[in-house]
Order: sequence, then structure tokens, then C-alpha cells
Amino acid sequence: MHSRDEIGKRAGALRIHGGRIDMASQLYPKSPQPWIDLSTGINPIAWPVPHIALARYQRLPLASEITQMKTAAAAAYGLPANAAIMPVSGSELAIRLLPHVIGVGRVGVLAPTYGSHAATWRDAGAEVHELVALPDPKAYDLDTLIVVNPNNPNGRTIARAELVAFGQAWTATGRRLIIDEAFADVRPEASVLSLPELPIGTVVLRSLGKFFGLAGLRVGFVIVTESDISPWRQLLGDWPVSGPACEIATLALRDAAWIAATRTRLAVDRRRLDGILTGAGLRLLGGADLFGLFEGPDGVELLDHFARAGILIRGFAAAPRWYRFGLPADEAAWRRLEATCGTLTA
Amino acid sequence: MHSRDEIGKRAGALRIHGGRIDMASQLYPKSPQPWIDLSTGINPIAWPVPHIALARYQRLPLASEITQMKTAAAAAYGLPANAAIMPVSGSELAIRLLPHVIGVGRVGVLAPTYGSHAATWRDAGAEVHELVALPDPKAYDLDTLIVVNPNNPNGRTIARAELVAFGQAWTATGRRLIIDEAFADVRPEASVLSLPELPIGTVVLRSLGKFFGLAGLRVGFVIVTESDISPWRQLLGDWPVSGPACEIATLALRDAAWIAATRTRLAVDRRRLDGILTGAGLRLLGGADLFGLFEGPDGVELLDHFARAGILIRGFAAAPRWYRFGLPADEAAWRRLEATCGTLTA
Repeated sequence: MHSRDEIGKRAGALRIHGGRIDMASQLYPKSPQPWIDLSTGINPIAWPVPHIALARYQRLPLASEITQMKTAAAAAYGLPANAAIMPVSGSELAIRLLPHVIGVGRVGVLAPTYGSHAATWRDAGAEVHELVALPDPKAYDLDTLIVVNPNNPNGRTIARAELVAFGQAWTATGRRLIIDEAFADVRPEASVLSLPELPIGTVVLRSLGKFFGLAGLRVGFVIVTESDISPWRQLLGDWPVSGPACEIATLALRDAAWIAATRTRLAVDRRRLDGILTGAGLRLLGGADLFGLFEGPDGVELLDHFARAGILIRGFAAAPRWYRFGLPADEAAWRRLEATCGTLTA
Repeated sequence: MHSRDEIGKRAGALRIHGGRIDMASQLYPKSPQPWIDLSTGINPIAWPVPHIALARYQRLPLASEITQMKTAAAAAYGLPANAAIMPVSGSELAIRLLPHVIGVGRVGVLAPTYGSHAATWRDAGAEVHELVALPDPKAYDLDTLIVVNPNNPNGRTIARAELVAFGQAWTATGRRLIIDEAFADVRPEASVLSLPELPIGTVVLRSLGKFFGLAGLRVGFVIVTESDISPWRQLLGDWPVSGPACEIATLALRDAAWIAATRTRLAVDRRRLDGILTGAGLRLLGGADLFGLFEGPDGVELLDHFARAGILIRGFAAAPRWYRFGLPADEAAWRRLEATCGTLTA
């Protein structure tokens, strides 16, 4: 038997950033092995990494290799004619460098969203405002606006045409617009990178962590206009990612067949996920094809319920009834998810 | 036949950062293959990287794995009781972040040394002074001093006792002392990391790129007092290096037998290098056990001479007769070096 206090304490400890399987297994040592990590929104079927030659670990990545990687990213994502692309050792690092590159001021964040954005700017001393919708571009009380599109955790997606019209008005007065497209691979039609021109002052972030399933690789990209690229080059230098990461990212971004097949598969899996969880009484709030956000039934701590079955899901301190579920990796994981949902409704 | 102008032009293009084999082979397309890269000071016999499981690429490195990596680094390098260690995706990134962490002011660099230090601070808007020796700590015209110890390219090494005495006086008034120990693995007796206490305001940099021969891996460490670690944690976050890099670095740093055997081998190879080059008429200026710095004979462009034999060495724009040679990887490379030296004296 578990007391309500104990349930709350253990579940509370899990109500943090996803992917903390080590913490979960310490908190729930009796849970069935192996743990199933649905807490991250990372594609569980990663792009298949090939063997990496030792030479790639030994020597610095060549300028030509970094260029090939950028070219592959530009081909996969699109790249406005006036834009430059800079690889970075994970888009999280780009998020954390942004206040140093842009300068600290009054920052708006379209909320709720990935917590690092607001936390980073607050740590840097900025005044951070959480907004529920795009602000009126004629209101001049913010210097920088951050939009995650599609958004994590609720999948809210601003259509490209709307975001572009807003962005042009917003940046026309020298303000900055940061668009985190970490999940845009599953909604390429929403990405601003297929625009012919990027408004000056726009910063776009992409990541290989989510769609390609390579979060451990730590590869992302910063895309800004040529006029804004110099501080990024100065900060990140000639070897912005490791040699192996450069090779893997280049090959993955060039793999158009895998990218197309994966988009299809993720859409199918997402429908299956939504069906299982709504069938178990959860209410679908939104999502992208890498995760769904659900409201749990009143009075049930779902973090605890699933953790006891060895399934780590994502909770949110600010919204205790919200739960984000990523996609199971294989049929065994789908079955354990279904079985654990079954005990919920029983 | 090559005109003097052409020789100067091609060699001039090579007189930049080491490791640009792609540029060298474009400039010297007729040179024998494969190119031998002696331009970097990187151990050519790298720590043997094992197969990395796909899971390491897929999931974020766990907090426990990052902790194990720090523990392995502390055991290999030493760690003062009041110090904290932060992994970073290559010590080059730490160098470039330093002005943002410390703040821009008047900076002294013990010269000549690795160019990124002065370049980074100048780019950040600092006033940079190149010094030929440690300054008088009673002179108050600098805020930050950068010392590479052992130094690249001349191997100049300040004894630990001297550097500690200086550092205590220097930092006592709130000034910063940055000690780049990228080459300290071959002179561990010079490292300040075996001190019981690190003076507050000291920043020590270590790297897996040189001694472990893993420059492509992009793993380094920043070591500061606990009181100074917070901005580094904020900038670099919970996943400061990739999952594969975390695993590889942890295993390499724990491999005490390889570390000891490698120190011995590098010392032997270094003596062989010095013998070959002094025998060919070059004058030994200094070095550490990963490279030697030599003065070339008057009127001979050694960058060009070796590049025509498919051997890339390191030149210096500010000192045209200085050449840094790294260690050949195998007997075939040693023989090509010897043969190319033979045609120099012929």
C-alpha cells in the first residue's frame, strides 16, 4: 500500500524535465524492467547510426565537413536566401547562449512551453513575461518574443503565413523573434525556413534530437540572417559539433527516404497513442506527431500510476493534471502501455 | 619548378590553425598520399574508442552518467577540495565563453600562445595585452591574465609552486587567472589541479583532445571554485556533452594503465622527433611531449618543403621561421618524415 503523501512525494520528484529514467528507477525500485521512457517527445525509433571510423574521433572536423553538414541541413529544412545556418552542440546550448548574443531586455514567451526558454532569460537577468497568444505587434513593451512552433507540450502551431506576417511587423522596429522549431520536422508546412527571406532579427532553432531520435548526439542549428551570424560564429567557432556528430547529422539530414517514411509512421503511431489514452478516460488537449498532451482524471496521480508499471511519462508542476506521453518504441512497449491503461479504468 | 612567390603564397595559406588537411591537399594536389598531419600537437595514437550502443545516441546523457564523467576527470586530473568541474563540448568552447562569464576588461595573455585566447577577448571587445612573462602581481593594470601551461607552441612551463604563489597574489584582489592546461597531461607535476585549494578567481581548462588524441570528440572541462561554478552550469546545462562523448571520456579518463603507458611512449617519441629534426639542421626552441617547436634554416620555407612531401606541419604568421611538429603516428610516417628531412640537408 502506498500512502497519498508518499505517492505525491515520489510523483512530485518526477515532475521535472523528461528523460530522468535513472531517478525514476531509484524512486520506483520495484517497477518492472526495462523502464519505458515516454517522457521525452523523442522519436523512439532513431535514425540508424552507422559505425563511425576512429579518425572522426581523432581529428577536428574539417571545414569542408562542417560545410557539407550545413548544406544537408539547408536542403532538409529549407534556408531563406538571406539566412545563414550555424551548427550547435544541441539547440539547448543555443537557447542558453541567446541572452548573451541578443542582450538582456524584456522578453515575452508564448506559454506554456519548454521551460528552458524562460529559465535561461530569468537566469540572465531579463524581465520575462509569459503570454498566452501572439502580442499586438504595435505594443512596444517587449524587446524579444519566443515562440516554440509547433509548441511543446500542447502542439499549438501557428500557421506559417500568420507567423510571418506577425514576424515582419514585430521585427520591423528592431525587436527579436525567436522561433524554436525543435518539433517542426513533423509539421514542415509550419516552418519559416522555406520562406524566400527571413525577417532580420529572427532566430530559428532546429534540433536533431526529436524527429531523428538522436537527443544524445547533441546537434542543433541556429538560423539567422547573414547580418546576425557573426556573434554565433565567434561563440561557437570552427568546430561547433564533434566529428562523429558532424558525420551522423550530415548523413541523417540527407536521408530523404527515411525522413518521409518516418513522418508517415509517426502520424500513424500518434493516432494509436491518442486512441489508447482517450479510451482510458484521458482527455486529449493537443500534441504533435511525437507526443500527445492529455488531461488526467481528477484525483488520480498518473505519474505514479505509470511509474509503478515502469513507464515514465511527463508531468508539469504548473498543471498537475496535464500529462505528456511520447510514442512507445515497439509492440512490447505498446502492450505495456495498453495494459497499464487497462488497470486505470478497472 | 615553383616560383618563390608561389611557394610563399601556398605556404602562407597553410600558416594558420593546424589540422587543415583538406586545405593542404587542395593547395598541394600532387603531394604523396596519404597526408601526414604533424600540424596539431594531438597524440596520433588515440585512446581506443569502443563501439557505442545506439541508446547513447538516442537518449540524453543521464545525470548519473555526467556525474561519473566528472568523478573520472577528478580522479585523473586531481581536483582541489573547494573546486567544481564542468564538462564542456571542447575546451575551445570554454575559451570562447570566458568573456561572457567573466566580463570584458583588460586582459593579459602570456605570449606567444594558442591564438584563440587573444582573438576571443578582442572579438568580445576587451583590451588585450600580450606579455612575455608573468606580470608583477602588485601592478594593477589588468583584470584577467591567461596562461597556457605547459605552453603551446614553445612548451614553456611555469612550475606549479611559482604559478600558485603568483596566482594567490594575483587573485587576492579579485582578478582572474585563466590557466589553460590543454597539454598538462604530459606534465602532470605542473598542474594546479593537485592543489588542496584553488585560489578563488582561477579558471582551469583541460581537454581530451590532445593527450587522449580525441580532438574530434570535443570534450573538455572547466574547473573553478564552487563559488564560481553557477554561470558555467547555467550556460552549459544538464547535457554539456553528447551521450557518446560522455561514455568515451569516462572510460578514457579511468584508463590509468593507458595513461601511464602513453606518457612513457610520448616521451620516447618526442626524443626521436627532436633527434631527427635537429639532425636535419633545425634548432630546437622548446616543446612538450606532444610537439616540438623548431627554428628553420634561413631562406627555406619548411611549410612548403614538407607539404610537397605530403606532410603538414604548423607555421606561425608572427614568426615565419618557427615550425611546430607533432608526433608521427606509425613507422611509415616516421620514415617519410626522415626521408623528407634528408632532402632538406641534401
